[in-house]
Amino acid sequence: MIIVMDKGATKGQLEEILTRIEGYGLEPHVIVGVARTVIGIVGDKNGLEPDAFAGLPGVDKAVPIMAPYKLASRDAKHEDTVVQVGNVAIGGEELVFIAGPCAIESQDQILETAHAIKAAGATMLRGGAFKPRTSPYSFQGLGELGLRLLAEAGRATDLPVISEVIEPGDVELVAQYVDVLQIGARNMQNFSLLRKVGQMQVPVLLKRGLAATIEEWLMAAEYIMSEGNYQVILCERGIRTYETATRNTLDVAAIALARRLSHLPVIADPSHATGQVDLVAPAGCAAIAAGAQGLMVEVHPDPNSALSDGPQSLTPLEFTKMVHQVHRVANAVKQNISEYGHHERQVV
Amino acid sequence: MIIVMDKGATKGQLEEILTRIEGYGLEPHVIVGVARTVIGIVGDKNGLEPDAFAGLPGVDKAVPIMAPYKLASRDAKHEDTVVQVGNVAIGGEELVFIAGPCAIESQDQILETAHAIKAAGATMLRGGAFKPRTSPYSFQGLGELGLRLLAEAGRATDLPVISEVIEPGDVELVAQYVDVLQIGARNMQNFSLLRKVGQMQVPVLLKRGLAATIEEWLMAAEYIMSEGNYQVILCERGIRTYETATRNTLDVAAIALARRLSHLPVIADPSHATGQVDLVAPAGCAAIAAGAQGLMVEVHPDPNSALSDGPQSLTPLEFTKMVHQVHRVANAVKQNISEYGHHERQVV
Amino acid sequence: MIIVMDKGATKGQLEEILTRIEGYGLEPHVIVGVARTVIGIVGDKNGLEPDAFAGLPGVDKAVPIMAPYKLASRDAKHEDTVVQVGNVAIGGEELVFIAGPCAIESQDQILETAHAIKAAGATMLRGGAFKPRTSPYSFQGLGELGLRLLAEAGRATDLPVISEVIEPGDVELVAQYVDVLQIGARNMQNFSLLRKVGQMQVPVLLKRGLAATIEEWLMAAEYIMSEGNYQVILCERGIRTYETATRNTLDVAAIALARRLSHLPVIADPSHATGQVDLVAPAGCAAIAAGAQGLMVEVHPDPNSALSDGPQSLTPLEFTKMVHQVHRVANAVKQNISEYGHHERQVV
Amino acid sequence: MIIVMDKGATKGQLEEILTRIEGYGLEPHVIVGVARTVIGIVGDKNGLEPDAFAGLPGVDKAVPIMAPYKLASRDAKHEDTVVQVGNVAIGGEELVFIAGPCAIESQDQILETAHAIKAAGATMLRGGAFKPRTSPYSFQGLGELGLRLLAEAGRATDLPVISEVIEPGDVELVAQYVDVLQIGARNMQNFSLLRKVGQMQVPVLLKRGLAATIEEWLMAAEYIMSEGNYQVILCERGIRTYETATRNTLDVAAIALARRLSHLPVIADPSHATGQVDLVAPAGCAAIAAGAQGLMVEVHPDPNSALSDGPQSLTPLEFTKMVHQVHRVANAVKQNISEYGHHERQVV
Repeated sequence: MIIVMDKGATKGQLEEILTRIEGYGLEPHVIVGVARTVIGIVGDKNGLEPDAFAGLPGVDKAVPIMAPYKLASRDAKHEDTVVQVGNVAIGGEELVFIAGPCAIESQDQILETAHAIKAAGATMLRGGAFKPRTSPYSFQGLGELGLRLLAEAGRATDLPVISEVIEPGDVELVAQYVDVLQIGARNMQNFSLLRKVGQMQVPVLLKRGLAATIEEWLMAAEYIMSEGNYQVILCERGIRTYETATRNTLDVAAIALARRLSHLPVIADPSHATGQVDLVAPAGCAAIAAGAQGLMVEVHPDPNSALSDGPQSLTPLEFTKMVHQVHRVANAVKQNISEYGHHERQVV
Repeated sequence: MIIVMDKGATKGQLEEILTRIEGYGLEPHVIVGVARTVIGIVGDKNGLEPDAFAGLPGVDKAVPIMAPYKLASRDAKHEDTVVQVGNVAIGGEELVFIAGPCAIESQDQILETAHAIKAAGATMLRGGAFKPRTSPYSFQGLGELGLRLLAEAGRATDLPVISEVIEPGDVELVAQYVDVLQIGARNMQNFSLLRKVGQMQVPVLLKRGLAATIEEWLMAAEYIMSEGNYQVILCERGIRTYETATRNTLDVAAIALARRLSHLPVIADPSHATGQVDLVAPAGCAAIAAGAQGLMVEVHPDPNSALSDGPQSLTPLEFTKMVHQVHRVANAVKQNISEYGHHERQVV
Repeated sequence: MIIVMDKGATKGQLEEILTRIEGYGLEPHVIVGVARTVIGIVGDKNGLEPDAFAGLPGVDKAVPIMAPYKLASRDAKHEDTVVQVGNVAIGGEELVFIAGPCAIESQDQILETAHAIKAAGATMLRGGAFKPRTSPYSFQGLGELGLRLLAEAGRATDLPVISEVIEPGDVELVAQYVDVLQIGARNMQNFSLLRKVGQMQVPVLLKRGLAATIEEWLMAAEYIMSEGNYQVILCERGIRTYETATRNTLDVAAIALARRLSHLPVIADPSHATGQVDLVAPAGCAAIAAGAQGLMVEVHPDPNSALSDGPQSLTPLEFTKMVHQVHRVANAVKQNISEYGHHERQVV
Repeated sequence: MIIVMDKGATKGQLEEILTRIEGYGLEPHVIVGVARTVIGIVGDKNGLEPDAFAGLPGVDKAVPIMAPYKLASRDAKHEDTVVQVGNVAIGGEELVFIAGPCAIESQDQILETAHAIKAAGATMLRGGAFKPRTSPYSFQGLGELGLRLLAEAGRATDLPVISEVIEPGDVELVAQYVDVLQIGARNMQNFSLLRKVGQMQVPVLLKRGLAATIEEWLMAAEYIMSEGNYQVILCERGIRTYETATRNTLDVAAIALARRLSHLPVIADPSHATGQVDLVAPAGCAAIAAGAQGLMVEVHPDPNSALSDGPQSLTPLEFTKMVHQVHRVANAVKQNISEYGHHERQVV
């Protein structure tokens, strides 16, 4: 950490800071500048935060140098993490396509969707049973019944299944039915929930929060990992900005950057990122071009009658076309990597 | 709701939409414009969302006309709601000052703070026992022990107490110790938690989410109220914007607007809104000038040794000065209202 | 436009609004709802804004239905506009690659770059002569000398050239040297400048403003077109959001959406969007995958010695690799379109 | 500046950076940490930017320590600057109230408004003659005729006048008629315009840009001051955020912070910040409570017939009430300062 002293900081204030730093078992380095004095702190102290210095007398600001996440960092583990779910590997050579309806509505709906997305090339089935809805008057999901229908549809099509869990008390129940636990954007900083899924031996898909920085997203992954569960998949799903023409703003550079900063697999959800059916495929292709290792897409056999998210759900036919296109984009990007190999200032 | 058809929408597509609207028991009004056809929907249907129409063939967009919240709306209840907590009334004539440390650290700390803030004019004691922290390596609070110390300090000073609850499973425990349950910004859309506190007979302080719109904030209140608990206090605590010079951006117009849109009391938290001790008082005064009915402020007997949020915590002396100033601002604003009364285009 | 009346609006207030609407030569349609009365306005009135009604007694809000841009809209012109610059067509079958240094620094620098980017497959040369810099103490560009060097380098390599113009008084001067006039993000709403370039017969590249909505961006294009210059190229270059890990946030869905809403060509600038050399290629590929018809990229023969934007400038070798990759992505996306053709709910 | 090296930076890369720093005549201090090596740079170099190091091999990031503005900084000049305009002092003991219509529409309108606002307690008259409008089809202002009418109304009421200038070529013309030149939010980074008004001997009111950071705002002031014109008044007018319920988000903490960081006077524009007549007074009071030294308010004798910004314009009566209220708030805040004086951790 770097501590910048006030212009008018006194000698006594400086000494007080130095004493504190040494009290943490760390080593201060003082640099006396023309206008300000700056202290560099050397040592390794997990959890030491700028707040420990920021408000002290004579201190202008404290600037962290190291990323606050450790287990999620590529510094800690250089090779890509591959999360294995049944016979599906997420984060490896193959793209993963997770598809299905926003909400599980009936046995017919989820089963029909499962067959259709499998035929289209999907490798995992999604469906919401516990739905976080902005309005208390909206359809809230079928609960455990939905999970049972999802699991049945998964078995019938030999597809692993994923569903969202929205409170710590439900984690064990949901884990009985699904292969991957999903943490939604609104719960990215529901720390009790993160700790709880961190104690399970089930892979977790962690969506980026609506207004979460990349650092906060990786810190949320760190919460899960710090409890012992290292099988975390990151999912970019659009962030909230001033632009209202789309539901959210897909942050493709965050995909590329998360892959550099972390060893965890990164996928994208172009359905929630855009909120409009005709933007899902372009956004999905863009995410893959930026380095995403898979996509999560809302598919409904009859979007016009969907109980939620109809406007952003693809039909199975539309999804099929998208899968073809996305594969071609992935090949276009991958080809380059093998062609040129590594060099010092790496591009892509 | 208003449905705007595509420029090239066919007669069949229009009829399909009309049939659907009638299927909901509602009455469509078609307006054929020069460039577009528009349908107005008349009737009252709780929970009917734009999504029910937005993706249908021939539909360009669906624009809601009515606010989606009902119980929280001033349309539903014209008079201000006053939430009574012991002998403290929130939302009435008197300002409420909720003060205390970010985290409860020890019996001495919370008791000393309680006495100091009471002397300074505070009417309620706050203190965190279950802390939502961005890093898993940060101090997470004392848990139930903290609640016990808080309750004791409250009894010793005859101040009602408030503390945050972060998961549904803890609600009953926390409610045994506190007079008001706090829902933090990160949990504003933790719908399970909202439902659970909605089932309690304890007042709830609901902080606005980091990136929540005013409408979403009122919808979160609606969640609590729809379960039967009408004792909700809204708390503006700054929103996330591109500006990084302050921790968040205090949205004073949201305070004024929430008071117009809703009958619920609205207070502000200038500590989290700014994150810097020397901005707390100006921001607090600004919130009151905009119509806030109270403040929640972090006060610590020794901010430099606080385990969290030191840089934004006031000393008891600083808090005392702020209370005086805030009272004068409140009087300055109130005087006006009685002086001029109501007129058609109401100012303040 | 749709006008929503207040819940308690009087009959007299409603009549006043109706009279006003008729006064504009438009036809009001009244829909009496359960809770609110709504007025639909039929007719065509360029420039009629919600503000004409929004503040009137009894009016809750006025909601526009039609996009406020006309000439820039795909409603006005269905086929893609292709802007021809010398032998380069922008918006047609071929991708356009505009490359060069942030600032023109010397004859050697711009000439060396021109040759290098041409060899790499670029089709147009960029270089700044009048630089908008955040600090008055930063290098401000070589001015007219820079333009002359740019034009010479363009002739020597048979590449059309583009450079930014930052004030109306410079437009004619800059137009003597360049083939395309660039309007930078900070000047997207410099309306005097837009009008002035609208009066020229030179193509204009219009960057999206740092915090401009897609609608405002298209309205800025409308300014230029309303003066008679229809040769406008849109350029997405990242928007300002709360995320600080990247310089800006590339909005790929805005590319896809602008192409649907407007007939004008859309390209992207991944250099300014990301600000980091290792994110330029992923972001560029993502933009193309989302439908961009070309890229504008900062390339410098020696980024480490560049007078501005070194950290985001590619070397010629890096740029060469990127061009190959981008071409493959473009083919991956294009193939799909020809393979499947059009259908009612169009995906890509 | 602090330079943080990559984890794997080589000795050669470090030496290269040290050589560069010395090449600038500055002194590097190397701190070898457990995980990273950090270099502190000592010396004073106006205009040296992080970009000079950020992209170099082996460099992770470059963190500036000093604010990039000098002349605008309170470090450079400790006492508040008071800008004198005729007999009005801005930034001194007295509040300044600048009022008038968005656009000058006719002699009667501006004259009637001038008399009304003077009676209400305003100290300066505003009115737009050159209007920056989002749509080319909106009313663009009366131009020089408007300026003449404004100047006449100012003389008739003995009020100094202010009007916006939107291009460098108009600066001298506008300066012939007005006492203060206004730079609008959209032109805050129109650097040519800033330079030009910096060369005049006329006070300048500089609005904060829609998405400008406080630092960028002060850098824009620095542009004007670096040309020799030190009479700059800062005006906060709301920033763009994700919230759409208000036109912009008034950033009251920015007012308090700008007053700490800079010696220049700071006022606020609650009309543009909120866009709704019933939020203008609460927002104005909030700005004053946060430390603003005056307000700029849109007042129109008949808002319902205003050619622009009707929904946010106050009537003279509404403005009169607001002025009274604002004065009381200012006294409430001021009283405190004299009562308590200065102490080390200053509150307000």
